[in-house]
Amino acid sequence: MTTQQVGIILRGDVVVTMNSNGDVFSPGAVAIQGSSIVAVGPEEAIVAEYAAAEIVDCEGHAIIPGLVNGHTHVPMSLFRGLADDLRLDVWLLGYMMPVEREFVRPDFCRIGTLLSAAEMIRSGTTCFNDMYYFEDSVAEAVDQAGLRAILGQTIVKFPSPDAQSYEDSIAYCRTFIGRWRGHPRITPSVAPHAPYTCTAQILRDASALAVECDVPLHIHLSETALEVEDSKRDQGMPPVQWVEQLGLFEGKVIAAHCVHVDDTEIGLLARHKVGVSHNPTSNLKLASGFAPVIKMRHAGVALGIGTDGCASNNDQDMFEEMRLAALLPKATQGDPTLLPARDAFAMATIDGARALHLDNLTGSLEPGKRADVVVVNLESPHLTPRFALGTHNIYSHLVYSAKGSDVRDVLVDGRCLMRDRNLLTINVAEVMGQARELARQINDFIDIREHSLLNKLIALESPEWGETFEIQVKARLPGTAGVEARLNTPTIEIVRATVREQYDTYFLFRQPEMGSIRYREDEVLQGQSAEGTQQTGVLQYVPEYTLTLIGPQREREYERSVILSRSRFTAKATHSLRFYREYFQPDTEHEVVKWRRRFRILYKGEEFAVNLDRLSKPAYDGAFLEIKSRTWSQADAMKKAALVGELLELLGIPVETIVKGEYVTFWLP
Amino acid sequence: MTTQQVGIILRGDVVVTMNSNGDVFSPGAVAIQGSSIVAVGPEEAIVAEYAAAEIVDCEGHAIIPGLVNGHTHVPMSLFRGLADDLRLDVWLLGYMMPVEREFVRPDFCRIGTLLSAAEMIRSGTTCFNDMYYFEDSVAEAVDQAGLRAILGQTIVKFPSPDAQSYEDSIAYCRTFIGRWRGHPRITPSVAPHAPYTCTAQILRDASALAVECDVPLHIHLSETALEVEDSKRDQGMPPVQWVEQLGLFEGKVIAAHCVHVDDTEIGLLARHKVGVSHNPTSNLKLASGFAPVIKMRHAGVALGIGTDGCASNNDQDMFEEMRLAALLPKATQGDPTLLPARDAFAMATIDGARALHLDNLTGSLEPGKRADVVVVNLESPHLTPRFALGTHNIYSHLVYSAKGSDVRDVLVDGRCLMRDRNLLTINVAEVMGQARELARQINDFIDIREHSLLNKLIALESPEWGETFEIQVKARLPGTAGVEARLNTPTIEIVRATVREQYDTYFLFRQPEMGSIRYREDEVLQGQSAEGTQQTGVLQYVPEYTLTLIGPQREREYERSVILSRSRFTAKATHSLRFYREYFQPDTEHEVVKWRRRFRILYKGEEFAVNLDRLSKPAYDGAFLEIKSRTWSQADAMKKAALVGELLELLGIPVETIVKGEYVTFWLP
Repeated sequence: MTTQQVGIILRGDVVVTMNSNGDVFSPGAVAIQGSSIVAVGPEEAIVAEYAAAEIVDCEGHAIIPGLVNGHTHVPMSLFRGLADDLRLDVWLLGYMMPVEREFVRPDFCRIGTLLSAAEMIRSGTTCFNDMYYFEDSVAEAVDQAGLRAILGQTIVKFPSPDAQSYEDSIAYCRTFIGRWRGHPRITPSVAPHAPYTCTAQILRDASALAVECDVPLHIHLSETALEVEDSKRDQGMPPVQWVEQLGLFEGKVIAAHCVHVDDTEIGLLARHKVGVSHNPTSNLKLASGFAPVIKMRHAGVALGIGTDGCASNNDQDMFEEMRLAALLPKATQGDPTLLPARDAFAMATIDGARALHLDNLTGSLEPGKRADVVVVNLESPHLTPRFALGTHNIYSHLVYSAKGSDVRDVLVDGRCLMRDRNLLTINVAEVMGQARELARQINDFIDIREHSLLNKLIALESPEWGETFEIQVKARLPGTAGVEARLNTPTIEIVRATVREQYDTYFLFRQPEMGSIRYREDEVLQGQSAEGTQQTGVLQYVPEYTLTLIGPQREREYERSVILSRSRFTAKATHSLRFYREYFQPDTEHEVVKWRRRFRILYKGEEFAVNLDRLSKPAYDGAFLEIKSRTWSQADAMKKAALVGELLELLGIPVETIVKGEYVTFWLP
Repeated sequence: MTTQQVGIILRGDVVVTMNSNGDVFSPGAVAIQGSSIVAVGPEEAIVAEYAAAEIVDCEGHAIIPGLVNGHTHVPMSLFRGLADDLRLDVWLLGYMMPVEREFVRPDFCRIGTLLSAAEMIRSGTTCFNDMYYFEDSVAEAVDQAGLRAILGQTIVKFPSPDAQSYEDSIAYCRTFIGRWRGHPRITPSVAPHAPYTCTAQILRDASALAVECDVPLHIHLSETALEVEDSKRDQGMPPVQWVEQLGLFEGKVIAAHCVHVDDTEIGLLARHKVGVSHNPTSNLKLASGFAPVIKMRHAGVALGIGTDGCASNNDQDMFEEMRLAALLPKATQGDPTLLPARDAFAMATIDGARALHLDNLTGSLEPGKRADVVVVNLESPHLTPRFALGTHNIYSHLVYSAKGSDVRDVLVDGRCLMRDRNLLTINVAEVMGQARELARQINDFIDIREHSLLNKLIALESPEWGETFEIQVKARLPGTAGVEARLNTPTIEIVRATVREQYDTYFLFRQPEMGSIRYREDEVLQGQSAEGTQQTGVLQYVPEYTLTLIGPQREREYERSVILSRSRFTAKATHSLRFYREYFQPDTEHEVVKWRRRFRILYKGEEFAVNLDRLSKPAYDGAFLEIKSRTWSQADAMKKAALVGELLELLGIPVETIVKGEYVTFWLP
């Protein structure tokens, strides 16, 4: 028998092929010529039939197909560990979006991609499916790193770091596809972010572009229960059904997550050959839920496993995802035989490749496929001993015991990207240095913001600013009737009167110099005349939500009043109290609830606010009078302090009933 | 200022103390003298105050308290990957118990412990809580390895590898405690296995021994829903309540699992200061469920994290457990803010030490505590970049991104067990070699069993054996009435008649030489007279379950009958069909369901079985006659074949209605 000459032969203890026969060769060998696998089989047979320029000795090692990461956002490795254990909205609106607006540039994406590539190669991933901005820069980095990837250019309905409008995104995407289509390892794709961040038109255009260019379409789909609820409310159907009706599934679709999908939707995913990426760590960490993995597999959905981006994982280690994928269905369905190790390993290899519509190229070790090969060291305590009762033993070791750090060598397209754990295509020290420098800048940006409530507020909303002096006095009253009667005097003109319930929540901080945040719900009784007595139309409470940053105050006390000098920034509160609580992370929190009758009055040509308050929290039996006036100068403040004295006399308030301080401070020691 | 001389100073990027202040020093240092920590603080302060014989440079590293593994069975590392993705009963009764009976000896435990110790040290564990057999040998290995441990000698109501009775166990345990009490790192303990594997008396005696010797008591508690159900049925209350009433909580108890505990039980655990080990991977892998971690923490239960044994994990990597512990409550309770990284890290360190009643010694880096210290390399791609916005960033990195393989150095009691990833107390190559040799023996033991249904059956039950010749004939009948009438002839004596429904499930295997397994449910109608006509008493169906291994058969056909020669092993089936299915793993499975009227007759002095069968599965409209007789010799078989021919004539059966083969083969191609 003549031997055939090839480039490389890897020979090792066990070759796990993931071919349709489920062949495992022990000992086994893989023959590679150029970028392709020529032969896979028992070691003896391969060595007899082929001669190689290079023989890689993998004794004590397993030779497996490179792992396929079904869904990630590689540049986000630069956000690793920035903000964790937060709710999705706080994480996204409070951290990710402000930081992305500020920092995501082509170079950021290049460096983040190289960092992720280093991490992925070191943990045995040879192929991944990405979605982010500036994918052209991502592609350049992937080209350098030597990995196989589908790279999805994000399209959203909001301005994004790389596009002012979705038309810009589509145009960028078209150029991007034109540049990279035909690359041996890189497949450009169209990535409308999610149904809820796109419009029907955007989804249709994105789909048309993907079909026209014959590239995959990558989308987040049914990640959270809220997304499904909203879709049912807004579109009358759940997300998968909706995008199917829009025609999205005409192309080669890869859907990330699919956590909350019903049987009908699973049927649609299977019928349209939509590839699905299950992302177990991300789904747990963001509390999205447990995807119906067993149902989807039974229905024939092409189902892979993904890490999701580093900002929600916080790494890109497919060994960890594979293990978690194998563990979860057992506990959620109470059956330890579900998703055995072999199936989880299939999801991370051949099924993952199928989900990416790349199973003609990768995902298994078979003649004719590209040589995407990983060598795993089996000779360490945590992989000892090793049983050989059936092929299930090696799958069990790979899924339940092996770690990313056990990967010794990685080949993609027949090219060695890592040998003996040394990265051959990435200068990892340089990339880590660049990543650290970018992180230092991001750290400073957030640090300044975190230590300044104002910056934190600005990052979120657009507050109105006011540096104010305010003259203020409070007095205890037995009731409000007496004062209301006395307000009806010719020297006082009531400009406007309202009745409102005010629910204030104060966020206080250990360092008083930070100031405090007040979240106010004003339930304003509408339909009153200016005098506050005659009622017009239907009376109803209309809510107003405001967020006020109150700077640390400097006080100057007078006999009958206090002059407060402080900065105030007020913004319409567009998020919930819960959101702000998690975002601002106060050290303590206090509530003040009151019924307020508010009068805007003119007295001797000056405007004052006169408030008659009844507090229910902190509970107080009587009532309070509050007279306030804003002022812009010290001199004016002095003058108004005198007018406040006159008003107190007019309203019959005895000096001994005057109290100092804010309602919220009544609690404080 | 004079400097104080100490043995070792570790100085690194960040020192995570886990003291009650939550101090994190960055950069920080730890000063160690002998086995104790002398000082922990900012690097500059420590270096100014102390001079050390040895300064360990930990630049780019985190210095953390050694991790505490709250529950494991260290010798079981030798079973790693042996049998996975199986139900608890199949795993335990089918694999673990037979293998443990055969292999668990003192040397087995010593080698398994050293293997686990290597794995644990390499992944940053410095202290663990064990339960197994021959704990004296485990202790010797732990002493050598240098780890800190609580070692629990198992007590169960069955014979175990190291004791024929529980009295032996108690005696062994008492000797064991006497030998190791007072050891600086090893705490012996009493380990009644679980409430359901002990009796009330055993639990009381175990508790008394633990209290008398002032050592901890380690027990599995409320691991599965079934355990709780059974306890409610048998004891009238759930397990925690039951053992509390038995007085078990009088000592220092460590309870593993506590997956299914209600609010009352959580209250009991907190009040009695029972330490609990949460074992997330094991609970998922065995489908036990999700422990109420948040509730237990809120109730003040001392709650640590454990790996459980390697046979249900399959490793002992506390970084993986910590991460999983942090992820699960988020998804099960739909709140991503639950169990933030800091809390998960606390569970793996100081809270874990508290759960083991060892927080006076370990779990945090504080002056006066033992120097159980781990150095974690932070300079790799998967830990890059690193933010410094607050202490939460380092916890996030340690929990969500760091791996066991990032551990560089490990100290226990001030002694270095691993430096630069080199193990200093264990000859790991030798131990791995010994582990492989043991595994080879176990592999052979199971391999022989797996490839022989007989051995597999013997491992489980004690079957009755019979190598039989059998003469058999079957014929199709239009109905059973005619034959029944003809049986009432003077030449035929009916010895016994029964009516039964028979549900047979056949397990068939690809290799016919393996034979097949029949699981039979016989629903026998009881209350009949011998003649099968007169009825006495109340009629009822009584089930009988038998398991029969039918060897491959050799046949010899005659005109009117078949002589079958085959081996049969019959055992009472004590497990469910589901159990046997998972245990024997047939390639195909077939059901035969029939109504059978069975007659034992005597004809010319020979005993025959005459069966009148109506098949409902496979469905057949008519009926069958079956005549059978066992025989022990070829000559006797020939003689009986002739008698069968006579019987067929007597019963009026035409030759053309005779069919060959078994009912089950009617399906097969």
